Amino acid sequence: MSGLVSFVSAGPGDPELLTLKAVARLQAADAVLFDDLSSGPILDHARAGADLVSVGKRAGRPSPRQGHVSRLLVDYARTGARVVRLKSGDSGLFGRLEEEIAALTEAGIGFEIIPGVPSACAAAAAAGIPLTRRLTARRVQFVTGHDTSGGLPDDINIAALADPSATTAVFMGRRTFAALSRALVAHGLPPHTPALLAEAVGHPGQALTRTTVAALGARLAADPGAAPALILYGPLSDAGDNPA
Amino acid sequence: MSGLVSFVSAGPGDPELLTLKAVARLQAADAVLFDDLSSGPILDHARAGADLVSVGKRAGRPSPRQGHVSRLLVDYARTGARVVRLKSGDSGLFGRLEEEIAALTEAGIGFEIIPGVPSACAAAAAAGIPLTRRLTARRVQFVTGHDTSGGLPDDINIAALADPSATTAVFMGRRTFAALSRALVAHGLPPHTPALLAEAVGHPGQALTRTTVAALGARLAADPGAAPALILYGPLSDAGDNPA
Repeated sequence: MSGLVSFVSAGPGDPELLTLKAVARLQAADAVLFDDLSSGPILDHARAGADLVSVGKRAGRPSPRQGHVSRLLVDYARTGARVVRLKSGDSGLFGRLEEEIAALTEAGIGFEIIPGVPSACAAAAAAGIPLTRRLTARRVQFVTGHDTSGGLPDDINIAALADPSATTAVFMGRRTFAALSRALVAHGLPPHTPALLAEAVGHPGQALTRTTVAALGARLAADPGAAPALILYGPLSDAGDNPA
Repeated sequence: MSGLVSFVSAGPGDPELLTLKAVARLQAADAVLFDDLSSGPILDHARAGADLVSVGKRAGRPSPRQGHVSRLLVDYARTGARVVRLKSGDSGLFGRLEEEIAALTEAGIGFEIIPGVPSACAAAAAAGIPLTRRLTARRVQFVTGHDTSGGLPDDINIAALADPSATTAVFMGRRTFAALSRALVAHGLPPHTPALLAEAVGHPGQALTRTTVAALGARLAADPGAAPALILYGPLSDAGDNPA
């Protein structure tokens, strides 16, 4: 009798941005495998006797190998456990699900994916910016700022990313955005295109900085910083000051 | 004393995909303005005395003018009410927030945006497909299938959409996908690129059909159908059968 693995999207970090279904899966879980120590208040939904297993990187120590995580999922499920694999944001966006899904499929273990609030949607919402605008931003794109080597991906579609009529969200891009911003401008994106640096989205230290593509590139070239960050650029709404 | 307007993302339709914050705003609301009659179970979170105001299209009758919705929001907020403006999916994605935000800003009324689960994320999750894959799908893009006239947008970036290394979600595209699929193939996207037609995502009649870009274009050319639909295409994961 194999258990079921639920890939549960935790949202951007704010515990109030969990879905009701995510809460229900956490409450029912026998084991929860998680990446991020900052998910403390989210893990509080797990019942007292559940195994809470950190499989992420922490404070400079290397993260467990991907194969180790997959093996743990399979081993827990084979005991008949209800297993939650917690992923930040929406698990289908840069959550690297495919390796774990392949391992479960090979082992004949069932799974489900519970979608969640992407951190890019939360960053835009916190800034009061709609990601699409009916006349000026009919396309939205999400990209990762680095490939498996940590650099800007070689095969990045720079023409698609330099389109001034799309809104772009760059995940994990603070170390590569200086280079990306130069490439975007070289491909015709106006240097004064609005940009938003969103740091620690959904966490207590959340900081939103409105700037431009060129200015943000220059700033991150001088000091990339370290907090988790998401970068938005494009025809971002200029709805004026929010009196809220 | 003006009230606050909360733009609340309701997610794709499944009431369990509401966030805890969305539920809290619904419970506290004096008035809820909503588009879609199918949001019944979601509206059940509102308290007994709240005004529930349908401002959407229904059964062939025309939808109220956008200006009418904006005026209602302003009028309710000016009475000091806590107002929820409910939007399906994530409100920042094709939710046309900018017109209502502009009206509130002009009237000096505060607002907040509560992000939610995009229907594209829910469709992919229901099909067991990660929207990104580490090596083959590092970019995801969301587009709308029609412009204000109902046709394929003139200024659509066909090169960006024909990129075989991106996953694309087309919202509201069933009437225009036949034309779009021909344009994609003409721009070099392989006709056998995997595609998913996701109908009534998050609703009781949900139907997921795996197909290809060319086959789906031909099918929708013959019969575009009527149910709300979302189309995904690109290097969709082929993780095999899910034993769940």
